[in-house]
This record gives sequence, C-alpha cells and structure tokens, in this order.
Amino acid sequence: MKSRIEKLVVAIEAHQLDACLITSAASLRYFSDFYFYFEYGASPFHVLPAVLLVDKSLQSTLLLADNETPPATAAGKNLSIRTYSSYVYETPLDFNRDFLNQLKSLFGDMNFRTSRIGIEKNSLPFVITELLIYLHPSIEFIDLSPDIDRLRIVKDDDEIEQIRAACGLCDIGQTAAMKYARPGITELELFTMMRAEMDNAVGLRVPLMADLVSGSRSATGGGMPADKVISEGDLILSDLTPCLNGYWGDSCNSFVVGEMSKKQSRTFALVLEALDIGIGAIRPGVKASTIDEMMRKHIGNYPHHSGHGVGLHYHEEPRIVPYNHMELKKNMVIALEPAIYEKDYGIRLEHLVTFFS
Amino acid sequence: MKSRIEKLVVAIEAHQLDACLITSAASLRYFSDFYFYFEYGASPFHVLPAVLLVDKSLQSTLLLADNETPPATAAGKNLSIRTYSSYVYETPLDFNRDFLNQLKSLFGDMNFRTSRIGIEKNSLPFVITELLIYLHPSIEFIDLSPDIDRLRIVKDDDEIEQIRAACGLCDIGQTAAMKYARPGITELELFTMMRAEMDNAVGLRVPLMADLVSGSRSATGGGMPADKVISEGDLILSDLTPCLNGYWGDSCNSFVVGEMSKKQSRTFALVLEALDIGIGAIRPGVKASTIDEMMRKHIGNYPHHSGHGVGLHYHEEPRIVPYNHMELKKNMVIALEPAIYEKDYGIRLEHLVTFFS
Repeated sequence: MKSRIEKLVVAIEAHQLDACLITSAASLRYFSDFYFYFEYGASPFHVLPAVLLVDKSLQSTLLLADNETPPATAAGKNLSIRTYSSYVYETPLDFNRDFLNQLKSLFGDMNFRTSRIGIEKNSLPFVITELLIYLHPSIEFIDLSPDIDRLRIVKDDDEIEQIRAACGLCDIGQTAAMKYARPGITELELFTMMRAEMDNAVGLRVPLMADLVSGSRSATGGGMPADKVISEGDLILSDLTPCLNGYWGDSCNSFVVGEMSKKQSRTFALVLEALDIGIGAIRPGVKASTIDEMMRKHIGNYPHHSGHGVGLHYHEEPRIVPYNHMELKKNMVIALEPAIYEKDYGIRLEHLVTFFS
Repeated sequence: MKSRIEKLVVAIEAHQLDACLITSAASLRYFSDFYFYFEYGASPFHVLPAVLLVDKSLQSTLLLADNETPPATAAGKNLSIRTYSSYVYETPLDFNRDFLNQLKSLFGDMNFRTSRIGIEKNSLPFVITELLIYLHPSIEFIDLSPDIDRLRIVKDDDEIEQIRAACGLCDIGQTAAMKYARPGITELELFTMMRAEMDNAVGLRVPLMADLVSGSRSATGGGMPADKVISEGDLILSDLTPCLNGYWGDSCNSFVVGEMSKKQSRTFALVLEALDIGIGAIRPGVKASTIDEMMRKHIGNYPHHSGHGVGLHYHEEPRIVPYNHMELKKNMVIALEPAIYEKDYGIRLEHLVTFFS
C-alpha cells in the first residue's frame, strides 16, 4: 500500500510549500497511522503526543512523546520516528523544552527557500507558532485543513475495513441493548452492560460516544445515559459511536421494553422506510441534498442532518443536508439517520453505507 | 465565595496586561466553573468548547459553543456568558466564523492601551493567535501558564471537597476490584465491573484513567486492562484516577486473588510502611524532597515519583521527587505512591493527603 503521505503532494505543489506540519489527532492517524488514546483529556506530560513533519520531497518524521506508542507500520511507510522526553521524575517537567529543541533541529535540517509552511490552524498551539516565527521571521503559515478534509472524504480500502470493524462493535452494543434492557434498571446500568460487551469483544477499552435515553427522554433525540430508571413500555433510543484505532463507527436503534404501541409501530415503520429510501437511492453521482430531500419528504422534517460522512471524525463530509449539493462518490462512507420525534418519544434509525460501485 | 477570577489580579499587574484569554480545559474549570465532557476527543463542531476573556478590570466573558452546557454558577460569579454557533445543519459547518467574529467583537469592546494579552501557550490555537495579530499588529503575548500553575498548587476549600468526592469514587472502584476479582475473568472484565459501580454511584459516565494489571504484568507498575485472564494467585495492581466535574481522584491498591505468598506479604508490609512514613511526615513546612527521600530510604528506589499534587490535572505540583525542595503548605492535596517492583510482581499503594494545619 502506498503511504498516504504522498497525497500531500497536491497541497505542497498547489501552495508551494516547503513543508507541512501535521498536528491534529485525525491527521496524524491518517498520514502516519499514529493513534493515541484520547479519553483521559489533556496530558500533563506533553503539549501534543506527536507532530508529523513532511518536507516538500516527502521526507517525513514523526516526533513522538516517549510515553506514547509508535505506529507499528512506520518502517513500511518510510517514516522516521524521533522521540522527545515527556514524563521524567529526576528533573522538572519541562516537556516543551526537549520537544521544541528537537522540532528546531528538524527544521534546521531542512533547507527552506521561502519558508511557506502548511499547518492545521485549529490544532497548532501557540508554543509551536512562536518557535517557527522565531526561527524564520518571514515564515508564512498556510492552513491545510481544507485540503486534508477534502482528501479524507473518499476513503481508502483499508480505511473502510477499519470503519467496518468499528461498526461491528456498534452491532455488539445494539444487540446487548436489546438483550439487557428491562424495567427497573437505569439507563446508565444498561449502558455499562452494553459497553462491557463492546470492550470485551476488542479486549481493550474503546472510546465510545453514546446517546442512550429512555421514555420521554427519547423525544429530544438523545443525551448521555443517566440514572433515570427504565420502565415497562419505555422506548429506548440507542445511538452508539465507538472509536476503534482512530476510526469511528456509528449506528442508532430504537426499541421498546415490552410492546410497542400501535402509534410507535407506525412511526418505526415510517422511519425504517425513510432509511430504506435513503439506502436505496444512495450511489455515486447522486447529490447529498437529493438523499436528504427524499428522506425528509417521506417522514417530514427533523431538527438535524439526514446523515454525514464517518471516518477519523464521527461527523465529516459528505454531510447529508439540504444545502449540500456535493455528488457522492464510491468509497465514501455515509451514515444515514432519519428520525421522527413525537411529544413523548422519538425514533431514530441509523445505518452506515458505502459503495465500491 | 469570592470568584477565582480575582486571583488573576496579581498576574495582570505583574505583567501589565490589558486582558487574559483563558483556553485550557483546566483553567476554564478553575476560573469559570465551566466543565466539558472530554472523553470523545476533538469535536467536529468547534475548535474550543469555550474561551474565557478577562480584562484588566476583571470584566469577564465566557464565550461558549452553543452545544455546551454553561456553568450553573455563572450568575453568582459575575460572569457574562455569550454563545457562538457550533452544530448547524441548515448551513455549512464553519464554526470558526461565528466564534472568531464574536471574539473579535469582544476584543473590540475593550479599550487596549498596550495590547499586552495574557494567554496559555500550550492551548491557544493558531486560528486565535492569527486573529489577535490581525486585530492588533503590535500585540504582545505573555504566557500565563506558570502564574496559573502556581495559583493552583494550593487548593481552595471547595476544590478539596471536589477532590474528596472523586476519591470517594476511587474507594468504590477499589472495593469493587477486591469484590469481583476471581480466576477465569480477564482484567478488562474486572475493570468494566469496577467502572460500572463507579459510574452508577454518580449516575453519570465518569472519565477514568486506570492501570489495572495482573500477575507478571504488575511487575512493570501499570498498563491498561487487557484481555489477559486472571489466575489464582495473581497479584492485581489497581491504580484508579477518575475525573469528577473536572477534579481528579487517585488511589492505588495491590492485592492477590487468593493467598499472598510470604514474600509478597513482606513486600506489601514494606510498601505500606513507606506510605505510612510519608503520610506521617507530610505537613506544612516540610520539603517535598524530604518526603520523597524518607520513602525511598525505607524501601529502595522505584522508577517514578513518590507522589504528586492532584487537582484539575492528575499530576501537578507539588511533585514529590528528589529534586523538588518546595515547602509543602496547608490546602495542598498530595498523592503518595511508594512501590516495590520485583521480577514477577509489583506492589504500589497510593493515598491522597491534605492538611488544613
């Protein structure tokens, strides 16, 4: 497999860049396969777990905190790895010093003509900006975020496999939801049983975003599981978004603990029809807005998107929304999630779709 | 209770600042009580969930993404709240536009003399740096991180209560570990049962960092729970670090599934003695390095700190390490965690200590 770093050539040439400095978690995973466990929030031991520096000849170095795990694929991707000191106890924690020193030497090793550097504007911290301005007072920063977002819309085959694996986890969680939901337990207790089965299936903790709400809480479409007790007849809305090795899965189911009312059954059937209409219509060449329109036309409006791309973010292009006339292409991965929200319950059904044409 | 924002007066005067722009999760929680759920990683709907702008007369505005929950205490703290548009489906996601426009107008409302702005160098994204330079070409950025870190070493009484509550969760998790550990289940299965009890005690999902390792895996001192099966006689090392409303708890226990060997019992007794020595010696006026030295002297060296402060980060000052001659003060909250790592097992015991003198 070719390294995805080669995809940066287009941006490097278009913007006449000397180098690209990649700092966001999603882009690090995309270009270098480096994935870090993000559930603990900001680390007290480093400003960034890694940065990826790619020069215009595609020489690439991943500068990595020494308490992080390097990507196993580095050698095959011709990626140099350098580590910087993060956690130490013998000397004061000044992780920026070693990190910035090494970044400085990496920049020093490159011969810049014009000092045009491609960066990611939302994830480049001031401490790096300041260093680069100090090293090259005439430096120009060019934001690569739109270029990278565009690259990521159409997935590589290996990415689709990663997303498929994450969706397998969604299936495990949804099956567990129907298996364990019963009157008398709380939403949170149900959630912990579902998450346990998902984690155990992988053998590791899996980051998981989830809406899990019951009864009238489902009418607003979502929310974190809380200590609300589930009652007989409660509708459960379960939207599971796990992250496996950096790639997200996404699915939503709605079911009742006990018997669905006739009204709920009709609502469910309508939402399922809308989902089937969307899945049936989705193919290369169709506009995102057309899919959105067909689904809303069948069941009426809902106060959110009809769907979205899924990959290294849980919500990315192509957005399936009224304004988006982007033509769909093969190897996109798209979540469709039509919904009907009544006064006392809500039903949303979500599947992921891709097509190899 | 006085607002913690008033503590910024010292830094504003010392650095002759026109304003402070607070961007890190810990500082936002510290100064404004705003806490956001960070387990899902970077959001596709905003660059920062909030920023806090404080001018030199302490006029304060929390600029908040409209999909985040404002702090309930805002009114009592004389904190203005403004929201910016984050998730929308009717128009393209360009959350930076509204965010930066509002930030621009907030800066426009202030009369800057010298344009000296206090910032946090590790959490200020390029997209804000760029805006501020555009608005005030002569702007000077002064890093407030050392000032804020210094403020946070000694806790306010309400902070100690928050940390105490997080430690209550540690206790629940440690009790569950001893209750559920048995031969034949995996570390991860044990972990999910422990986490379930912690979450259920709160009625909400609680971010949780944890070492949970068994048998020879304990010899290295830690690691995430994996699908390694627990056997009779395995030593379990359980280090639990939950985050409750932004404040972390931290505790570590080591126990055996079945009977401890005589050697393990001796090791355990030694580590417990070291912990007791540390707890007994810790008091205002004692140097951090003295506590560190006393503990290491009793049981020999271990390849990590003897302890650390706990608060809005799970590792902060005062670090209980050989080089740190900082004098301890009342209202510090300190984790002590001596350990002995043998070839085939490791024992670490960790308690949190504070003193009101």
